[in-house]
Amino acid sequence: MKLETKKYILPKGFKSIGFHGKIKELNSDMAVLFSETPSVFAGVFTQNIVKAACVNRNKEILTKAKSVNAILVNSGNANACTGKKGEEDNEKLADNLALLLKIEKESVLTASTGVIGVNLPMDNILKAIPNAVPQLTSKSEGFQSAGRAILTTDLNEKYASVVIKLGDKDVLISGIAKGSGMIHPNMATMLGFILTDANISQNLLQKALAYAANKTFNMISVDGDTSTNDMVLVMANGKAENIAIKEDDDNFKLLVKALFNISKHLAKSIVRDGEGATKLIEVEVNGCTNLIDAQKIAKSVIGSSLVKTAIFGGDPNWGRIIAAIGYSGAEFDPEKVSIYFQGAPGYVCVMQNGEPHHFDAGSAEAILKQKDVFITINMDSGNYTSTAWGCDLSYDYVKINADYHT
Amino acid sequence: MKLETKKYILPKGFKSIGFHGKIKELNSDMAVLFSETPSVFAGVFTQNIVKAACVNRNKEILTKAKSVNAILVNSGNANACTGKKGEEDNEKLADNLALLLKIEKESVLTASTGVIGVNLPMDNILKAIPNAVPQLTSKSEGFQSAGRAILTTDLNEKYASVVIKLGDKDVLISGIAKGSGMIHPNMATMLGFILTDANISQNLLQKALAYAANKTFNMISVDGDTSTNDMVLVMANGKAENIAIKEDDDNFKLLVKALFNISKHLAKSIVRDGEGATKLIEVEVNGCTNLIDAQKIAKSVIGSSLVKTAIFGGDPNWGRIIAAIGYSGAEFDPEKVSIYFQGAPGYVCVMQNGEPHHFDAGSAEAILKQKDVFITINMDSGNYTSTAWGCDLSYDYVKINADYHT
Repeated sequence: MKLETKKYILPKGFKSIGFHGKIKELNSDMAVLFSETPSVFAGVFTQNIVKAACVNRNKEILTKAKSVNAILVNSGNANACTGKKGEEDNEKLADNLALLLKIEKESVLTASTGVIGVNLPMDNILKAIPNAVPQLTSKSEGFQSAGRAILTTDLNEKYASVVIKLGDKDVLISGIAKGSGMIHPNMATMLGFILTDANISQNLLQKALAYAANKTFNMISVDGDTSTNDMVLVMANGKAENIAIKEDDDNFKLLVKALFNISKHLAKSIVRDGEGATKLIEVEVNGCTNLIDAQKIAKSVIGSSLVKTAIFGGDPNWGRIIAAIGYSGAEFDPEKVSIYFQGAPGYVCVMQNGEPHHFDAGSAEAILKQKDVFITINMDSGNYTSTAWGCDLSYDYVKINADYHT
Repeated sequence: MKLETKKYILPKGFKSIGFHGKIKELNSDMAVLFSETPSVFAGVFTQNIVKAACVNRNKEILTKAKSVNAILVNSGNANACTGKKGEEDNEKLADNLALLLKIEKESVLTASTGVIGVNLPMDNILKAIPNAVPQLTSKSEGFQSAGRAILTTDLNEKYASVVIKLGDKDVLISGIAKGSGMIHPNMATMLGFILTDANISQNLLQKALAYAANKTFNMISVDGDTSTNDMVLVMANGKAENIAIKEDDDNFKLLVKALFNISKHLAKSIVRDGEGATKLIEVEVNGCTNLIDAQKIAKSVIGSSLVKTAIFGGDPNWGRIIAAIGYSGAEFDPEKVSIYFQGAPGYVCVMQNGEPHHFDAGSAEAILKQKDVFITINMDSGNYTSTAWGCDLSYDYVKINADYHT
């Protein structure tokens, strides 16, 4: 299963475009993803109790509708904590696009990312949408322009696609995402949109997404702050015409794997491009008695400011790692824990069975000089495992978030 | 009840000294606090599953012994994750001091703070203790030298004392503490030692300490990292000869209040002196339906890297505050939340009943220029309240923790 991460390819029956809604001063800030025929869909949303209007609206549509046709996305403004006016604006945007596409307004999902507590510049947006719709295209350029328009202060585009064979049909799955950025840094929001021409039921699509998101998007952290707008949406329009996928068949496993691989690539792209990040940190926890504890430990280590600054400084300070394991909330025997640093130059064991393990400082330094640092933790108590991804904490994170003014 | 925070005063019957055990290269790094007569004691300890040898040993003594005479503290080395050798070293230190003071070794409590996973330089320490013991003194200079010796990356000494009248007797309560990094006390490397000549039972002393610590030391955060060595110990030797304190009498309330005030001053001194901190942030949450939710919200806001960098940058970015309230884990109605910034120049309301509230940018800026920034959050749903203290996140936090090498 080979990931394509450069050339933007839309699955059959989809069109898209990115454009300038004049929310931001200069850059493109809006995108439409459109399926010509009704498409089943699935979504996972922020767990923050304070939710943007778009999150609440999409969740409601997900409980009622069997299919949708379009996703309208804007960057530069989260339309969160904007009260009744914010809800009305969100509804008006969906309604406006629906009229132009000649579909029901409930067939349009919405997503916003950007500053919290400021109303959308509706006049600008409502002028821009009618000009954008005729430009919807199935070509690579349109999809890439959408991928760019959803970015805020991200430095890099985030895209991945994969082709899988279901029966005798080629099924394409393509995803775009945004993470966090530098100019409006309180947009810690992540958004992900995945399109596929697979023929699959809504129920199975939701299951597949929930599985993939839990092991990827939900296992990354840039700064521990959960936004009010996070969401990942998947649309599947069936145009590949593969035979219907069943939960217990190999085709479902293949599709889940494809969705997982795309999600993992997008999630890792987000942390690699985290605010001020100079390194990607991957923490793999093995030997746990249960999955929840494995996830708690991996997320606790990836979230520790002290671990993050140590990696930024190139220091194998394993005391900070064991401390983060200890306060993770997981139950474990400290005397069974072993910790390793790994990278292209090899690996070093820094703690073995709860005790310090002598290691070569030069080898550790060489590993920590790499752009990708791998920390492996063995709890030696069971068969459960979990992996989380984060980034280091640098001067630039503080600069980006302190210098920006609302 | 006036707090004395400059002049170090030891309660009757106590002696102390700070000295150089050659754990650090140059600065003093060890202290002895000694009560000439057996003293009841109480303690609260880190909730980190990985605990230093001193934490485990003190907890065990607390379950068995009715009194102790001394506390032996070292900075510069946490003696945590040092295996069997670490346990033996810890025991040997207690034993050594006990012999010199002619007391049982179980009458000596121990506390360590510093780097994790490195063995103590026992030869240096065992040479230094015999020279230090004869210098134990009831004078101010001895206590202050102890207060200095327990510091690590702290820039300032942390001390508070108060005199209360119990019946016709003056009772003195004096405390010292250290903080700086890995501070998210969940009794977090914070140490606090409080001495009093009050006459009180061990049971009541433990109750009083637990109450005070939960509302003070456990409500501060520098970086969200809970250390392996945190502890607060109180010794009460009865030398003030006040009539025995009962749980239901006013004298107990007075003592609890005194302990709370001292603990609050020491806790606030720790965050004010947090690694790289330029501002103290106090978050008061009112109107909650229960205490747990009030505490979750206060701690979530104080712990948010985005809120901390915003305050460092002098930006009233309330979107980051409402986001942190939203992911705190507390249950609440977003439409009832109001948020205020307060300080010496006055106050501004930035969010009212879930919607943005227009405020004067100049007033907000003036408030955020102060060294102490107060954020008041009203949830408008009940009568429970909680206050937490934290500090901003600056370039220097990253510098201190990235440049420091193990």
